[in-house]
Parts: sequence; structure tokens; C-alpha cells
Amino acid sequence: VTVSEIGEFGLLERIFPRLPVSRATLVGPGDDAALVAIRGGRVVATTDMLVEGRHFRLDWSSARDIGRKAAAQNLADVAAMGGVGVALLVALALPAEVDVSWVEELYDGFHDECEPVGAGVVGGDLVRSENGITISVTALGSMRGREAVTRAGARPGDVVAVAGRIGWSAAGLAVLSRGFRTPRALVDAHRFPQVPYAAGPLAADLGATAMCDISDGLVADLRRLALASGVSIEITTETLEVTPQMRDAAQALGVDPVRWLLDGGEDHALLATFPAGVELPEPWRTIGRVVRGRGVYVNGSPSEDAGFDHFR
Amino acid sequence: VTVSEIGEFGLLERIFPRLPVSRATLVGPGDDAALVAIRGGRVVATTDMLVEGRHFRLDWSSARDIGRKAAAQNLADVAAMGGVGVALLVALALPAEVDVSWVEELYDGFHDECEPVGAGVVGGDLVRSENGITISVTALGSMRGREAVTRAGARPGDVVAVAGRIGWSAAGLAVLSRGFRTPRALVDAHRFPQVPYAAGPLAADLGATAMCDISDGLVADLRRLALASGVSIEITTETLEVTPQMRDAAQALGVDPVRWLLDGGEDHALLATFPAGVELPEPWRTIGRVVRGRGVYVNGSPSEDAGFDHFR
Repeated sequence: VTVSEIGEFGLLERIFPRLPVSRATLVGPGDDAALVAIRGGRVVATTDMLVEGRHFRLDWSSARDIGRKAAAQNLADVAAMGGVGVALLVALALPAEVDVSWVEELYDGFHDECEPVGAGVVGGDLVRSENGITISVTALGSMRGREAVTRAGARPGDVVAVAGRIGWSAAGLAVLSRGFRTPRALVDAHRFPQVPYAAGPLAADLGATAMCDISDGLVADLRRLALASGVSIEITTETLEVTPQMRDAAQALGVDPVRWLLDGGEDHALLATFPAGVELPEPWRTIGRVVRGRGVYVNGSPSEDAGFDHFR
Repeated sequence: VTVSEIGEFGLLERIFPRLPVSRATLVGPGDDAALVAIRGGRVVATTDMLVEGRHFRLDWSSARDIGRKAAAQNLADVAAMGGVGVALLVALALPAEVDVSWVEELYDGFHDECEPVGAGVVGGDLVRSENGITISVTALGSMRGREAVTRAGARPGDVVAVAGRIGWSAAGLAVLSRGFRTPRALVDAHRFPQVPYAAGPLAADLGATAMCDISDGLVADLRRLALASGVSIEITTETLEVTPQMRDAAQALGVDPVRWLLDGGEDHALLATFPAGVELPEPWRTIGRVVRGRGVYVNGSPSEDAGFDHFR
């Protein structure tokens, strides 16, 4: 059954029962706007758009994977401020010949990712497209009384730490790009990330001075954080983990796995700086330090800007 | 100069100074997420996506018109809950060959529409597209202590009233579709709506029992409100205004202008029900009443469902 056969309102009837529900939803989907309870008078808000062929491929990712990924990258941005995701809004441009089950599974993916966080899908939009699928997600979050942690607060003397996977998604993409479907763990990591959501508020509680998520690559996001804070950052790669699967895949593909660690995005690990002397509990692990100056140094050498530019 | 020539970060440098700023913005664009002050613990949130060729045409609308329209239709949804728009997030998929000035003017349009409301653009996303421009806007609003007015509260005995223009945008679209560029007032009304934003909170203060904006057509939105409230609605067309320009344009095109009033969307007028006896100040004007039963009656006859289905 295609979307055009059941129409917009038929599709909405299929989608509504699949939406994750949050207790914070005072008015949910179906009205002009949603009404969401967010205590404390401050709302965290972020949006990301995913375009078919550019951010996902229908032959590499299931609809459910894409839903999880779209939710995860927005909820990760909320966590990277020290916030907790409360609500998502999902706008979707769909060709009329898309199968209804694909759309249902997309929303199952939103459900999978939102449920553990406690976020609900509170609203959205459905429009027809002649040119592939576009998904735009907005996440709203609560600070729960915490102060927001921006990218701009790192100070010389701070330690630099990460929480979550680094390089897994890039390794999975490299594997898929060469036509392989294994190692499964890396391929799955590319389909949707495993975001350490709780590490964000934890970092805020530990007194993190700056924080962001790693969406474009460790070095690229370190560079952005360093620039926003007016500092330099030094890291060593010995503290970053090349897993056995990553090492094997890199060997099979004839590439250096350290590039995945340094330049690979989309794992949505969290990156933060903390005052020296703060004892960092799991999942946070130290990878470097903040110094005076500018730029990012990896194992003592200035790093090239390998950041991804969408338009170049 | 095209977008691909200056790249993502060059484009952001052009966009940032053009963004409307709100005092409610605690952390603005450039970090993982924005932080917005919204008092009262309840956030109004809504999203709409506009696809090139479907929701706008580059030969009929300037970038500035499109920005105004995209902002307006979201801010109208906030007003239709009785809320006041505070913040927008704008996600944009752009072909690399789009001219930078087009993007700058799009944001000028957001600025034009947000400034009088007091809303800021607090965040967004820029992605590359191979297939035309897609704009996804999310609006956040504050209730400022008011109770939200949903579509579901209309009761038999209530009066039905509208605020704002009805049928103007449809008339403008009909004129443009036939290759004309005048009457200017109608064509301009199609390019971007004149939304009576203040009428939303005013209606909430007057005790409106149900409210929505008219995005798909008066009858279609009356039907939705009646269905959500479990009531029937009767209106008469004699209270709706066919302006002289509308009458002349309809005559020139050989169509009945009343169809524009009944089925024309995109003016984003507000539609509300009020307890009988409430004195309605400008810009609210009565067009009918709520009765027991179901469906919508126009001049005593049951109306056909002429609502727009995006996928059929």
C-alpha cells in the first residue's frame, strides 16, 4: 500500500498510535501546535534535517534505523548542552509512491530512540515531495535546573574528555561503501548511533566548562570548541580505542583506522572539558588537555582542518 | 556568488547577522542547541515544511516572500493556540548552485515577519540538496499565563468568528495561475499572508472555547474544529467579504469568488468559537454558530469535504 492510496489522513491514522508519548505532553499531535510542559523557564531547542541520498540511503538503512538516527542526532544535541530530551517534532516530505509500511517503521524508529530518554513526538508535518524523502526533526529539552554547558567555556588547564563511541560510524560507512555488510557491529553503528545521553547532564553536574557532541568528527568538533572558547586543545591518540573489529576492517580496506577516530562523524559521542582535578566517572575518559593558544594538536602536531563542509 | 563558492561556513557568516534576535534567547545559533527563556513552564511548539514547486515557486515569490510565508504559517499556529511566538528554528536544504543573495533574502523575510512579533531565529540547520529547496520551520511560543485554546472545546450555543483575511491568497493564486500579475493586493496576499497574530491571545482572553488557524480553507478547518469538538457548525456566506478586487478578478477569470472564501487556504486567518453573549471586538467578526450534530452547513446546506489532501 502506498502513501497516495491511503492519503494524508489515512497516513496520520497509522502514524499517531506509533508515536512515543511523554507525560510532559499537554496537547499532542493533531492541533495547530503542541503544548509541552518544560519546568524551569528555559527550553533547549535544536533541529536537524536529513536528505535521502545524502544523509541516508534506503539500501543501507531500514526506515527504523533512519528514524532512530534522526531522533538520536537531535537528542544528542540536547544532551550536549547538559539537557534531557522531552519532545520531538517531525516534518516529513514524502514521495506519494512510498510504501505506508516504510513510514510506519520510520516512526517505530523514533519510538525506539525516544522511549528510553522519555521524550515524546508531540507534533509534525507531512508534505508531498517529488524528489526523495526529507526528514526534519526538532528536539526540545529541559535543563532540569542545571546550567547549560556551551562550547565557549573551556579554559587553559582543563582536561578534555569524551563519552561514547568514536570512529565506529565512519568505519561502518567505509565498510558499506566497499560493498561489505560486515563487521556487523560497525555497520550497525553507522545505521544509528549509540548516544551516551546521560553523560550530558552528568558532565554538567561534574562542572564541565564546555561541551558539544561529535557530529562532524573529533578533530573538527575539537576545533570548533577550541575556537568558541579561545583556547588550544592537545590530544593523544593512544587514549582512543581502535577496537579489534575496527583494526581488522581497516586492514581489509587498506586504510589507517586512526583517521576514523579523528575525522569520523555521526557517532554523536559527547566531548567536554572539565577543570583539572575533577574525578571523571564512566563513561567519561580523558583524551587531552586545554592550553593557551589556538588550534588542535594531535600527538604534538597541528591538525589539518578535515571538517566536513556540506556545500563544498 | 553561489552557495558552493562560499561553502557552509561562509554562508553561516552571511546569515547570522540577518537573524532576528529576541531577548528570550539565552544561547543563540552556533552551539549544539539553543536555549530559550519561556516563562510559565509550558511551551507551544509547531513545525511546517515547505517544498519548492509545491508550496512555493521561485518565479512567483521572492526569497523574502518565502521567508515571510514560512515564518508566518508557523507563528500563526502559535497564535491559534492563544500563544505568542518567541523563537524559530529554520532547517534548510539547498542546491549548491543557489545564489547566496537568495539565501540572504530568505532570512530577511524571516526577520520581517519575526520582528513585530518579537520572535528570534535561535537555531537551524543547513544541508545540501540535489533536488530543489526545502524549508522546515519550527516555532516555539509562550502562553504568557493564558490557557491554551485547542480545537476541541466548541459547545452548542457558541458563536463562530473569524479574524483576518479569507480567500485573498486563493484569489491571488488563481490570478497567478492564469498568468496575470494583478490585482496586486491579491497577488501580494498569496506571496505571504497578513496574520492577525494579536487576535489569538485576545481570543484566549475573551474566553474562546476552541480555535485554529485557516490553513487549508474555511470549510476544511471548520470541519476539523467541529469534528474535534463533537459538534456541528452553521455559517452564512453573507457575513464574509468579497472585496471589489476579488469580485473583479473572479469575473475576469469566470469563477465564483465564494469558492475562494470557502475553500481557499494559506491566508492563516484565525477561526474561533466563543460563548454566546461575549462581545467580540475587532478584528473578530461573527460568521455563524455551533449546534448539536456533526458536519458543517453553509447557508443551510451540508458542505462537501473540499479539504486538501497532500497525497491525493
